[in-house]
Amino acid sequence: MICDNISINEAGHLCFAGQDTVELASQYGTPLYLMDADRIRHNCRTYISAMQQAYGDNFEVIYAGKAASFKQMYRIMAQEGMSVDSVSVGEIFTALSAGFPAEHIHFHGNNKTERDLAFALDQGVGTIVVDNTEELTALNEMAGDKDIKQNILLRLTPGIDTHTYEAVSTGKVDSKFGFAIETGQAEEATKLALSMDGIVLEGFHCHVGSQVFDSDSFVMSATIMLRYIKEIQTKYGYTAKSLDLGGGYGVRYLETDPYMDIRSNILRVADHIKATCKELDLPVPKVMMEPGRSIVADAGMTLYTVGTVKEIPGYKNYVAIDGGMTDNPRYALYESEYTVMAANQANEPCDKVFDLVGRCCESGDIIQPAVSLPRNVQKCDLIAVLTTGAYNYSMSSNYNRFLKPPVVMLEQGESRMVVRRETLDDLIQYDF
Amino acid sequence: MICDNISINEAGHLCFAGQDTVELASQYGTPLYLMDADRIRHNCRTYISAMQQAYGDNFEVIYAGKAASFKQMYRIMAQEGMSVDSVSVGEIFTALSAGFPAEHIHFHGNNKTERDLAFALDQGVGTIVVDNTEELTALNEMAGDKDIKQNILLRLTPGIDTHTYEAVSTGKVDSKFGFAIETGQAEEATKLALSMDGIVLEGFHCHVGSQVFDSDSFVMSATIMLRYIKEIQTKYGYTAKSLDLGGGYGVRYLETDPYMDIRSNILRVADHIKATCKELDLPVPKVMMEPGRSIVADAGMTLYTVGTVKEIPGYKNYVAIDGGMTDNPRYALYESEYTVMAANQANEPCDKVFDLVGRCCESGDIIQPAVSLPRNVQKCDLIAVLTTGAYNYSMSSNYNRFLKPPVVMLEQGESRMVVRRETLDDLIQYDF
Repeated sequence: MICDNISINEAGHLCFAGQDTVELASQYGTPLYLMDADRIRHNCRTYISAMQQAYGDNFEVIYAGKAASFKQMYRIMAQEGMSVDSVSVGEIFTALSAGFPAEHIHFHGNNKTERDLAFALDQGVGTIVVDNTEELTALNEMAGDKDIKQNILLRLTPGIDTHTYEAVSTGKVDSKFGFAIETGQAEEATKLALSMDGIVLEGFHCHVGSQVFDSDSFVMSATIMLRYIKEIQTKYGYTAKSLDLGGGYGVRYLETDPYMDIRSNILRVADHIKATCKELDLPVPKVMMEPGRSIVADAGMTLYTVGTVKEIPGYKNYVAIDGGMTDNPRYALYESEYTVMAANQANEPCDKVFDLVGRCCESGDIIQPAVSLPRNVQKCDLIAVLTTGAYNYSMSSNYNRFLKPPVVMLEQGESRMVVRRETLDDLIQYDF
Repeated sequence: MICDNISINEAGHLCFAGQDTVELASQYGTPLYLMDADRIRHNCRTYISAMQQAYGDNFEVIYAGKAASFKQMYRIMAQEGMSVDSVSVGEIFTALSAGFPAEHIHFHGNNKTERDLAFALDQGVGTIVVDNTEELTALNEMAGDKDIKQNILLRLTPGIDTHTYEAVSTGKVDSKFGFAIETGQAEEATKLALSMDGIVLEGFHCHVGSQVFDSDSFVMSATIMLRYIKEIQTKYGYTAKSLDLGGGYGVRYLETDPYMDIRSNILRVADHIKATCKELDLPVPKVMMEPGRSIVADAGMTLYTVGTVKEIPGYKNYVAIDGGMTDNPRYALYESEYTVMAANQANEPCDKVFDLVGRCCESGDIIQPAVSLPRNVQKCDLIAVLTTGAYNYSMSSNYNRFLKPPVVMLEQGESRMVVRRETLDDLIQYDF
């Protein structure tokens, strides 16, 4: 199985976190997002223990909430000793509503409005990751007005192309995010931040991409960032306390995807950072990482019911399920790959190829093309799409006026709804 | 200007439906969806008067609600004598909540659940466009149980590729939608429908694609469909009363897009239909069309405020606005093109090229690459993205926990909110 929280029971039913998916579908209805809380905790602990081994107490693991953001997620993060990265006031508000401590929130974004910044300052958000000069200037003025010294990181672009596809590669010089080191804009921003009374510059941030399966790009970006830190120390006498390497470790969507050993990769990067600091005569900074996908992706599964099986002789076969690009737009957006199983007959041979399509009135509404399923798949069968914990619920829409599915959390053999299913009345609540 | 509801006033401000966009942005905030009700009505009337000229009273114009669905839209459709096409219970519910008559609703979808069908039967939805055998069988049984004779169309695929790109071309044989004529599946379904007691087969439906700028594909599909109708008449003695040609007429997103004369195209298709019916010795059926995009696209505009202008020397320039793929995912999904203007300085020469990007924490969050704007564009400037009436509000999401913008309707010189802006409390209302 693609992840060890997936198994098949004696009835031939797919189990997730040890629970029978056929029973879960019957109890909560479909489409249904499942989240395995034990797996989320396991993933958090993997990061934290590896970082502890690598850096002692001088580290911070920051969950990138955009992967999956709802109240219960923040409670788990607080319990696991994680910080969280929020990219909007909406995410911050959700975290605070769940009792997550403001001082452990990092506020990201390439275009925070002044209302956003005011909200963050008023709520006591711990760290603001400043992306651009307009933001730096506005933040300094507002912090001054409020008599606050706001802790910040400056987001820099180290100029690394991770060779993942363009849409998720954000560490290049040519990016809407951050200040480029290569062009001198990073240095200008650093000088400006150091001169500001309302700002405490804690250090620097970078992010090189998503779905990264080795440490090369982290090693490269750490090198560039540490050299930059040294250059700033030499020129301005300022030694950055923190270095945030961003997120990006990959997850397995397919059996053929490489297995990613987070611990050994963290240790490898740490060795490199320590050696480089020694070489540059720098203290080892507090190292931060921002995993999102690798915390929640394999903790998620989506269940659907088959409505229609359409065989077009000489052309193609379609299995249409009761969800689609509204609850999982990732194939429509990126042609993302997923593993698909017939959950109620998980032991049957998968000997026929179908396009798994959604119910939206749109040809592009494809969950996954050319998936192998049992040849007798039919109406009322249960379909599981695996590894949907990241960027599925969070990217869902009401396109075609479909209702968003609930999120059911599985933990220690129990299940409970943590985000309820939308209703028809919910749909029209904003309409006059 | 790309559409005659757009102008520039003496202050150099962009006007939409005669109203100053700078004033509207100041009154309602940004991001802001504007909809020009007068233009919507004008577009409805264009269809209806051309269809009347072409077919007398024997026609139906059916607004494809998935393009933009909220209560006020259905009130306008009712006032304009339009029917509506709904693709979900959510759309039907929205229409009914606005007082739209159920008998003028057509219910579409490639995977209607039995709960969906029960809802439609209970509400008295006028026409169900049946897509597949499972649906036909279920519907007949349910109608029988409820002692209803349900009016239906069968959705057929005429096997036409409109040469628009794959994601919007749905009339091919290889489609998740409908019964293919070529494979004999359409005939099987027709025989089955004719044998059913709970079903009244009114006729046939097809849809050949989107953004179609001429009548060729409609002429082709009408030919295939009429020949099919003749074949069924000959074999089974059943003469279809209605022929639904679907939607698809294109709209202008760019000044360089062709101008589409709806009236003359409708008349041209009508001439062809009448001639073909004469040739085949068929009565001219009631002809139905399902425009969506061409009813609402040019009645929409989205306003944004610039937050950041980032110039990366030797690379690219970015203008980041306070919205993005959450309120308009169409570039991210289809690389859709849009016309962009600096609304508060609409007379300035557009002499510098920028990527117009959103505020989501994602590199693919691009509204439009390489747009020309005045070189001095800066923070607080107002940006207008034109022709956003279709598939913008309807596809919007809360990705990154951003709040959906309101829809403000402009009519007869007045403006009013028809969908209110989401609040932070709205965002967490489903979370436990």
